[in-house]
Amino acid sequence: MIRRIAPEAQIIDITHGIPRHDIRRGALVLRNTLPFMPEGVHVGVVDPQVGTERRAVALLCGDGRRLIGPDNGLLGLAADRCGGVVAAVDVSRSPLRLEPVSATFHGRDLFAPVAAHLASGAELLDAGDPLDPSELTALEVPSARSENGVLVAHALVVDGFGNVSLDATHADLAGSGITLGSRVEVEAMGRRHLATFASTFADVGPGEILLYEDAYRTLALAINRGDAAAALGIEADSEVRLSPR
Amino acid sequence: MIRRIAPEAQIIDITHGIPRHDIRRGALVLRNTLPFMPEGVHVGVVDPQVGTERRAVALLCGDGRRLIGPDNGLLGLAADRCGGVVAAVDVSRSPLRLEPVSATFHGRDLFAPVAAHLASGAELLDAGDPLDPSELTALEVPSARSENGVLVAHALVVDGFGNVSLDATHADLAGSGITLGSRVEVEAMGRRHLATFASTFADVGPGEILLYEDAYRTLALAINRGDAAAALGIEADSEVRLSPR
Amino acid sequence: MIRRIAPEAQIIDITHGIPRHDIRRGALVLRNTLPFMPEGVHVGVVDPQVGTERRAVALLCGDGRRLIGPDNGLLGLAADRCGGVVAAVDVSRSPLRLEPVSATFHGRDLFAPVAAHLASGAELLDAGDPLDPSELTALEVPSARSENGVLVAHALVVDGFGNVSLDATHADLAGSGITLGSRVEVEAMGRRHLATFASTFADVGPGEILLYEDAYRTLALAINRGDAAAALGIEADSEVRLSPR
Repeated sequence: MIRRIAPEAQIIDITHGIPRHDIRRGALVLRNTLPFMPEGVHVGVVDPQVGTERRAVALLCGDGRRLIGPDNGLLGLAADRCGGVVAAVDVSRSPLRLEPVSATFHGRDLFAPVAAHLASGAELLDAGDPLDPSELTALEVPSARSENGVLVAHALVVDGFGNVSLDATHADLAGSGITLGSRVEVEAMGRRHLATFASTFADVGPGEILLYEDAYRTLALAINRGDAAAALGIEADSEVRLSPR
Repeated sequence: MIRRIAPEAQIIDITHGIPRHDIRRGALVLRNTLPFMPEGVHVGVVDPQVGTERRAVALLCGDGRRLIGPDNGLLGLAADRCGGVVAAVDVSRSPLRLEPVSATFHGRDLFAPVAAHLASGAELLDAGDPLDPSELTALEVPSARSENGVLVAHALVVDGFGNVSLDATHADLAGSGITLGSRVEVEAMGRRHLATFASTFADVGPGEILLYEDAYRTLALAINRGDAAAALGIEADSEVRLSPR
Repeated sequence: MIRRIAPEAQIIDITHGIPRHDIRRGALVLRNTLPFMPEGVHVGVVDPQVGTERRAVALLCGDGRRLIGPDNGLLGLAADRCGGVVAAVDVSRSPLRLEPVSATFHGRDLFAPVAAHLASGAELLDAGDPLDPSELTALEVPSARSENGVLVAHALVVDGFGNVSLDATHADLAGSGITLGSRVEVEAMGRRHLATFASTFADVGPGEILLYEDAYRTLALAINRGDAAAALGIEADSEVRLSPR
């Protein structure tokens, strides 16, 4: 569909591997990958409410990127990383969409055509009706806190290897007593485990737990050559308490 | 292989996710997607008989698209949608193929090279020997019928979410008493279920069955946030009887 | 990342389907596919030791291809097929890498940037420090031998269909008495099976075992419409003894 409208566009497939309906996973992937990608028109579609009156939007970010997708929280974390939303339009009934629009495949009929036209030179205001950015739907994500010297974090997402991204960064460890190389007590699902705060998987033995800063500057838990989520019983939103041992 | 022969060709990967040997699934994907794609040279390879004397063909359709693949029914439904077969050639021993041709990987050695040469300007008759289109292998697919006010349809294909495409379209419901919003009785595998004829998944509650027109104008069964094929015990070719409730 | 540095580069994704940590599978895929691909800069990343002091390298092959990846044996089989290593550099601290380099994602921060710069015209010596090719890490793979008229081969890799690639080629059958169409005794895991040396799957009945030369000129075992590895209990490195029946 994009090639029909914008034959010269370069198309990069970030992923088609987001689990069905997993808006949060999609939002985190966009947040993590966009800063490393060329500036462009970025389409995200994780859309359990397709066909309802849920809004579809196109956003202009402070760094010039344009984001297109359903208004269900999918785009917000990425927009925050890209300079915030400078302008927004409601594209639900965009004049740039394919007619007739099917009820179930807005990726093809709405989001891709709008994105292709924007990539070909259309202005944001050609794509829909202006919208106050403050009205955009926000994604609810947990938030780490410090509690009596313990960093109380939460699992944001579990990847296909069982690695667990937390809602915390290296900065949240300031004052916790946990530094690179430290032994760390990890409490999750009512049980305590011993981990090492390491730079990379190979810094610990096979089967051992590590806390590490992942490639997107986020703290994460993993097991070298193993599945941390399965071993610790962690799912999305599980509380994970980190303290020095 | 395509890039070696046609470095300037734009390559679009429709899918590499067709289940092994599932000619019908491949045929339906081609039928459904080509009308939305730029006109081009379209290669399909689902080829359980690779290495035997099964014919390989290149087809010119009425709308100008060219289709390349094994002559096993894979291309026929798409050709019908694209204006029918205007000309056909047997490319089994095409002068455009890679030599030596392996016995098991004609996608690389035969279909891709022929397609790349056609995309680069070769004529259909350069690719092989003329063939009467009436000699092409047709795909056997079931056919819906009306019976005492009941629409007797069949499952054509079950997708990875458990959604079930039927061999019927909205037009087949004319006179059935089923209209958008109707309650529908679905009889499958000897059991009866209640469904709603809806526009989209979110029109019914989680776990409820819907009959809907999918994004390719085909009637389909699904369960909102569930797996209809598993819940109803439906496989390809299963009979599905639809009547108003 | 590649597009940011080399917007005009044509990118071909050979596969993202190598099982985690399976260096040998990656090495064989590179060896098998590169001879059929346009000459280019080829990046391979299967990198269980990412973040340790393992070396990262860029290689120039005799046929002009350049290979980039971790120095863990991943690139060697392909380099052998492509004319051998003519020059090598250590790119672990390449001036072309992204700064700061993350500890766990060298595909993004090191290998892709180095490859993109090479594709854009940088010289191999711009990418790192010269290295004696003899110091490169070699992959340990088993080696077929002839023993009293029996070809003693080994499973190199099992693909997703259960087809088993052996460490032998058609030439290794010279003098064995096994010719195309022969019945073959296959001894594996202490049990004996009957197979046919055939050109292609369809030459034997469904469920029957065949020995065949695969599309990369390697001998392989398969079951027509079945899973040979599961049926014969074969894993990577399993010994497979072939003799005429």
